[in-house]
Amino acid sequence: MPDEMARPLIRRGGGEAGCSGRLEAPASDPGAPVVGILGTGDFSRSLARRLVASGYRVAVGSRNPKRSAALFPEEAEVTSQLEAVGLADLVFVAVFPEHHSTLAALKPSLAGKTLVDVSNGLSVNRDGPSNAERLAELFPESSVVKGFNTISAWTLQVGPRDGSRQILLCGNSCSAKSSVMQLCRRMGFVPVDMGLLSSSLDIENLPHRLFPCWRLPALCTLCLFAFFYAYNFLRDVLQPYVTAGKSVFYKMPIQTVNATFPAVALVTLSLVYLPGVCGALLQLWRGTKYDRFPCWLDRWLTSRKQLGLCSFMCAALHAIYSLVLPSRKSAHFKLLIESKQLQEEDVWVDAEVWRVELYLSAGIVAFGLLSLLAVASLPSVANAVNWREFSFIQSTLGYCALFVSTLHTLLFGWDRAFDPARYHFYLPPTFALALVLPVVALLGRLALLAPCVARRLGLIRRGWERSRHVRFARPDDVCCNGLEDASYV
Amino acid sequence: MPDEMARPLIRRGGGEAGCSGRLEAPASDPGAPVVGILGTGDFSRSLARRLVASGYRVAVGSRNPKRSAALFPEEAEVTSQLEAVGLADLVFVAVFPEHHSTLAALKPSLAGKTLVDVSNGLSVNRDGPSNAERLAELFPESSVVKGFNTISAWTLQVGPRDGSRQILLCGNSCSAKSSVMQLCRRMGFVPVDMGLLSSSLDIENLPHRLFPCWRLPALCTLCLFAFFYAYNFLRDVLQPYVTAGKSVFYKMPIQTVNATFPAVALVTLSLVYLPGVCGALLQLWRGTKYDRFPCWLDRWLTSRKQLGLCSFMCAALHAIYSLVLPSRKSAHFKLLIESKQLQEEDVWVDAEVWRVELYLSAGIVAFGLLSLLAVASLPSVANAVNWREFSFIQSTLGYCALFVSTLHTLLFGWDRAFDPARYHFYLPPTFALALVLPVVALLGRLALLAPCVARRLGLIRRGWERSRHVRFARPDDVCCNGLEDASYV
Amino acid sequence: MPDEMARPLIRRGGGEAGCSGRLEAPASDPGAPVVGILGTGDFSRSLARRLVASGYRVAVGSRNPKRSAALFPEEAEVTSQLEAVGLADLVFVAVFPEHHSTLAALKPSLAGKTLVDVSNGLSVNRDGPSNAERLAELFPESSVVKGFNTISAWTLQVGPRDGSRQILLCGNSCSAKSSVMQLCRRMGFVPVDMGLLSSSLDIENLPHRLFPCWRLPALCTLCLFAFFYAYNFLRDVLQPYVTAGKSVFYKMPIQTVNATFPAVALVTLSLVYLPGVCGALLQLWRGTKYDRFPCWLDRWLTSRKQLGLCSFMCAALHAIYSLVLPSRKSAHFKLLIESKQLQEEDVWVDAEVWRVELYLSAGIVAFGLLSLLAVASLPSVANAVNWREFSFIQSTLGYCALFVSTLHTLLFGWDRAFDPARYHFYLPPTFALALVLPVVALLGRLALLAPCVARRLGLIRRGWERSRHVRFARPDDVCCNGLEDASYV
Repeated sequence: MPDEMARPLIRRGGGEAGCSGRLEAPASDPGAPVVGILGTGDFSRSLARRLVASGYRVAVGSRNPKRSAALFPEEAEVTSQLEAVGLADLVFVAVFPEHHSTLAALKPSLAGKTLVDVSNGLSVNRDGPSNAERLAELFPESSVVKGFNTISAWTLQVGPRDGSRQILLCGNSCSAKSSVMQLCRRMGFVPVDMGLLSSSLDIENLPHRLFPCWRLPALCTLCLFAFFYAYNFLRDVLQPYVTAGKSVFYKMPIQTVNATFPAVALVTLSLVYLPGVCGALLQLWRGTKYDRFPCWLDRWLTSRKQLGLCSFMCAALHAIYSLVLPSRKSAHFKLLIESKQLQEEDVWVDAEVWRVELYLSAGIVAFGLLSLLAVASLPSVANAVNWREFSFIQSTLGYCALFVSTLHTLLFGWDRAFDPARYHFYLPPTFALALVLPVVALLGRLALLAPCVARRLGLIRRGWERSRHVRFARPDDVCCNGLEDASYV
Repeated sequence: MPDEMARPLIRRGGGEAGCSGRLEAPASDPGAPVVGILGTGDFSRSLARRLVASGYRVAVGSRNPKRSAALFPEEAEVTSQLEAVGLADLVFVAVFPEHHSTLAALKPSLAGKTLVDVSNGLSVNRDGPSNAERLAELFPESSVVKGFNTISAWTLQVGPRDGSRQILLCGNSCSAKSSVMQLCRRMGFVPVDMGLLSSSLDIENLPHRLFPCWRLPALCTLCLFAFFYAYNFLRDVLQPYVTAGKSVFYKMPIQTVNATFPAVALVTLSLVYLPGVCGALLQLWRGTKYDRFPCWLDRWLTSRKQLGLCSFMCAALHAIYSLVLPSRKSAHFKLLIESKQLQEEDVWVDAEVWRVELYLSAGIVAFGLLSLLAVASLPSVANAVNWREFSFIQSTLGYCALFVSTLHTLLFGWDRAFDPARYHFYLPPTFALALVLPVVALLGRLALLAPCVARRLGLIRRGWERSRHVRFARPDDVCCNGLEDASYV
Repeated sequence: MPDEMARPLIRRGGGEAGCSGRLEAPASDPGAPVVGILGTGDFSRSLARRLVASGYRVAVGSRNPKRSAALFPEEAEVTSQLEAVGLADLVFVAVFPEHHSTLAALKPSLAGKTLVDVSNGLSVNRDGPSNAERLAELFPESSVVKGFNTISAWTLQVGPRDGSRQILLCGNSCSAKSSVMQLCRRMGFVPVDMGLLSSSLDIENLPHRLFPCWRLPALCTLCLFAFFYAYNFLRDVLQPYVTAGKSVFYKMPIQTVNATFPAVALVTLSLVYLPGVCGALLQLWRGTKYDRFPCWLDRWLTSRKQLGLCSFMCAALHAIYSLVLPSRKSAHFKLLIESKQLQEEDVWVDAEVWRVELYLSAGIVAFGLLSLLAVASLPSVANAVNWREFSFIQSTLGYCALFVSTLHTLLFGWDRAFDPARYHFYLPPTFALALVLPVVALLGRLALLAPCVARRLGLIRRGWERSRHVRFARPDDVCCNGLEDASYV
């Protein structure tokens, strides 16, 4: 569902969406500062529109003014590159980086002015120099600011979506940066100063990233899925076929999948809370919090949110699959056959009834809690809570969710783990495998709650260090809703 | 669920929520600038509270100071209009526009000062002049700024919800505007400069719009629903009644609806991706991207997000309806009757079993993908991703969703499309109708992926034009996560 | 799912997440202003990282520079406290409040400088003075600004999540405040001026609150749940056991719960709209809107959003529970038994079929509407709509939801309310109880829509007062998407 501006007024400022709109052309302010734009591509046009809509005067430098003029709002003055540069103190360079050299002629007239490089590389550039740095070499007398490359022409046209759109800037001249920042703000964007031009390479590489922090969690979820699916296939489909020649391959699309998702969801959820426990144990063992965690633990800790959401997705799919079960024709047929073969003996098995009622209700509660956690991790919701509320949700509620889903699995298993008949090919039932990690995580958490351990941990997290044998916290350590807790949640 | 501030501290700043709160009255800053307010209505009161809470000194001009004083926080000085205007350089005019004339007496003392017009019309005003423009005529020596009319008194009182609340401003004097913008920022709002006072009419009309960008998509969804419902009613309810006298009207509330929603969802989803294909073909045919799309295509392109969400809603309702089916008494009775009439022949039909298992699982996957797309189009989520991630979700995942839901429909249909018995009244089954557009969209997309076509399209989107027969992109076209792709997603 | 930055670039700026990242060390700007930090705790370190990443030069004052240096990014100059204070005009005080006294030695060199107190109390401090006020007493020649305590070290490290992160500030010196505000903005945060230092106590207490606005609604929902569960247990489980000795305790985990949730959801939903009706009636009775509502009504009005969300949660759980019903073994067994006992008489009961089909479809529609309301109350969505759209959703759609869910309950009840056999222990069926409040709310709303009443109410809400017997609105009352409506939604 391609996102676009909810506020038609501003969108109408864009030509793409035009066909209507006095705002297409709000006369720009004669007193307003002039901004120059070199280049007449899509980005230049969107930028010009936004600038005009924000009350700036715009001078566009084109190598072919006549041709280009038609493409710009009539308030924008489309002239030669030299003229445009002459009019403005702040000039956007919106030409392909490979063509920056074509601007050499403008060097003298650009001296002492601010150049904003909005370009992106075609691919990730690891070793630099960045386009912006090359531009700065080209125009040593001008102060180059990198920015706007993380904003798409589309976003520029429709305007800041909800006033929280960030523009990352960097540059070596403070004054140049602040003038660009002011411009950003007048357009309704939120500028963020990223420091010196040396950061420009990172800023240029930003638009090329594709969910980097999702890779690890997604991969691990996929592997878990593959493993458990194969395992279930072996136990539930292949085994009856091999041993009894019973063909139940029709189970593969739904039943086997639905036996896999809960296992994946439970294990992934336990992976959300294990690193916190590891971190705490590590701190206890080291007797300080001032040594960095090992790298793998760091990455694990920072992947918890994504792991949690993966776990939630699996749980949700498990819920849907389970609800779908009774609508399958196979279930329908099974029922008919059963009712046909039915002898006079009583069909009602009380234990079975209780088991199902209990594990179903535990499952529903667990799913409800997971949904709360998922909603709470939406950016706008997470922003509205303070640290204490956040850790209450993610830590307290999170552990409740882990506990209840473990309970759900235990109730589902009932006494089957001890029934040899369940060990097809000598393989333990899936739920038994899935229970290992969650139980470890829960026991670990319990151990940390033991008074002595908890006290010691509390001290360490307030800055106490065994090595220094001081009982009180370091005076130069502020007690604050702190980072230390981040490894704790 | 009437929305209100999550942050009670600030909310307590409001009287409505009062009953508590030292913040009800934070002594205001003697050194702070004075802001004047003309008018003592709700808006004035909320404004006064917010200004005081932001450390401003407030002078309220009332025609009846004694009476009004009680309504304002005690820090606000409630005096005569003349006095209030005398104290402040920046004056909010919060009286009914029809009563602006009553302020004529203040003309001399308002000269050279900044007037902020916060008024709204009672209805949409198409031809102007706007209230602000009329106010500017009334006070030629003052510089009028339009703004704050898009903010409700309630929002003012509870404060900016999450720091991303925009205030649209316009005015002819730059200095006046920037002083108002600074004031906005100190209150925690995000000011957006909309240019000259000529934009004020649009800003005044903003609060009157009611989901303008939802009209078209919602209408089209409704029409599709009406059509398919009628069609299904004809085939599944009326036909058996007319031909066999079999009364199955009980199907109308659920079964017929549940046969309608999937069709609507699928067609609407295809409508999300068709315009992109059209746009691409148009660009290929024209051999350039620099000609504007026809108006209908523009509007279609900008409605894609809403169409997608409509499609998701229908899909979600379809899911719920389908899950509800087995809990209906009718299903229950049917089953009992079937089990009663059951003869000795085998009830198990393998093809049926496979068909259902397959289309159900395809359906679940499709719904999962649609849910992802829906979540990704939440403002706060969409803001957190860069262009590449955004187009990955909306384009790649989107087409996957379209493909899988088409597959779901095909599997549901199985071989029925070729079974004459299915053609009640010679009408083809619903799923066959619903499949037309999606298949077109998918084939169109496939065609665009053909190497030669894709290359050509890529060139065009980098600025190449057949007319100019140049093989390389225009140097004055920046390669940027660009608008061109917007028509592509 | 512990939340963390979506933007790895900035996160890499943090050590916790480090292990990668040129941004770990962006050379800081020689021309940039110097910011001092006293204290070397987690918060100081995160703050230093963020400041360096935002292009500031940082001087950290430690009582043990050698030891601490390792903990800070290499751009940050870690020196003695005295030296650090000497270098900077703006100094963050990030030491435990109980150790503020240890800074006394710095008094002379801190004179005339801006001190930012970032500390929090260990617990809620009701009567003051706040840490900041005590710090101000300690350093009378410095101007103290309170702030940053609502931001966690973690948030500082990962940077502003989506550019809408607020930092609440207060202080007595305007210039000091604005310099701190500018610093906030350069870091990408949204500063909010909360007035004089007297507000610091509230700001310090903020991080200690735990969902204050959820207490009342959650409590009321829980009580309703307890009551209705007990009521259902009595009627559906205990009664058959006592009277007929029939043990149906297996109903407790699911069936009884599922009979409870709808009742709770419906009553809670009616509680969302009752206060609006009360408010309107009160205004009609008083003949003015300028008298404050009684306290209980105020609190009720401000809890509506939370009540609504509670109602939605109950409705969602009710939906899941109902969908789960047919998958229970008990349902399975019941069906088999039924099909076994089945005599030749016809099983099909038309009334039953229609009843179920109708109440199910009404239920689905009601749930769909409630979901819309829930989504619309997400901060980021609520921010994107204007007042008219907001009140359309929350008022118009809200009443539709209330009406349809009442209908759902009525259809579910069918004629049972008049069937004496349903009155176990002479207790009326649950749905009858649950219907009382919703019906009241709906009738109240209807009454308010009566032309005469509506006209009068409209007048009052535009500022008319019976006492003054004026027919037209007060001229000094701006017609604006106003607060008055807030009590109306």
